[in-house]
Amino acid sequence: MAEPRIAEHAVDGLFIGRTSPRSFTGEAIPDEVLFSMFEAARWAPSASNIQPWRLIYAKAGTPEWGPLFECLMPGNQIWVAKASALVAFVAETHRRQGETRTENRTHALDTGAAWMSLALQAEMLGWATHGMAGFFHDKAREALRLPADFDVYMFAAVGKRGPAAALPPELAAREVPSVRRSMAETVFSGHFPVVG
Amino acid sequence: MAEPRIAEHAVDGLFIGRTSPRSFTGEAIPDEVLFSMFEAARWAPSASNIQPWRLIYAKAGTPEWGPLFECLMPGNQIWVAKASALVAFVAETHRRQGETRTENRTHALDTGAAWMSLALQAEMLGWATHGMAGFFHDKAREALRLPADFDVYMFAAVGKRGPAAALPPELAAREVPSVRRSMAETVFSGHFPVVG
Repeated sequence: MAEPRIAEHAVDGLFIGRTSPRSFTGEAIPDEVLFSMFEAARWAPSASNIQPWRLIYAKAGTPEWGPLFECLMPGNQIWVAKASALVAFVAETHRRQGETRTENRTHALDTGAAWMSLALQAEMLGWATHGMAGFFHDKAREALRLPADFDVYMFAAVGKRGPAAALPPELAAREVPSVRRSMAETVFSGHFPVVG
Repeated sequence: MAEPRIAEHAVDGLFIGRTSPRSFTGEAIPDEVLFSMFEAARWAPSASNIQPWRLIYAKAGTPEWGPLFECLMPGNQIWVAKASALVAFVAETHRRQGETRTENRTHALDTGAAWMSLALQAEMLGWATHGMAGFFHDKAREALRLPADFDVYMFAAVGKRGPAAALPPELAAREVPSVRRSMAETVFSGHFPVVG
């Protein structure tokens, strides 16, 4: 058995109850549910309200699904095959103003805020998400037809949670809530602890 | 008057109702409230559950406040002076395994997920947050005593929302909910729209 999730301080169940399953039922996702998730992502905050994120999606069983699915590493394809949708999180890395091209230092951080909003809105609607860094980067750039100054950081699988027993044994064993580093190792007062 | 926030699809009020005020009341924040926000951040998802984020905080009126406050650009100091706490979002950029040092491609994105969780938990508790990219990077590295392979991406002010009228006129005028790019310009099916 895995360790249970234990909060050190009061926290809304939305945050500690959210997990990233690999077992999905494969049921079709209605557009209105998927777009509610996108809507939550759209309202995330970003530096100077630049909104560097773009979301590129494909629903299972549509012509768009294959090209996105093929970007995933085989170990993820095994279980993503029963997800209902895939969403790629893409960010505009630089800003151009006239002749000047400058990096937006928070482009990935802001995109993470959009991703978290999507994941929490999914949870509220009874759907689950699972983010993945395990994809082929160059293949994804090409499949998603990314313009210059955009980069792709993650894919998320979206679906209805299925039983662990539906997974191959080695994946079923991982279908338990992950734990976290302690608060004392994560949050510091004033400055980083002075090591040693 | 600014344009109102209008959702294109159903979305929970938590997401569209959250704004980033500049007017704060300056009231003291109880530790249990601040640590509920940190707890939400702690449970954010991350690639391989690495949890690259670290949060470094200072409450107003404590010895820790000054060094963090001094990292902010003057335009932010004007209004952050009445916030209740500052939180710096720091990320571990690389992973070392034996002799090998590799970049964690999602270190900033994952840290953004932790930031969004903190902001939403704050909102649930009746507190507000305002993220800032406007700080002196080298000064912050030093004040926060960042080790190698860590970088600082943003500061957030945390406080109780105050009246717009308490701000200088030019800031009071900005105390309105920001709008967003349209869904059609943000979310794409299958691939980036082909331009031209």
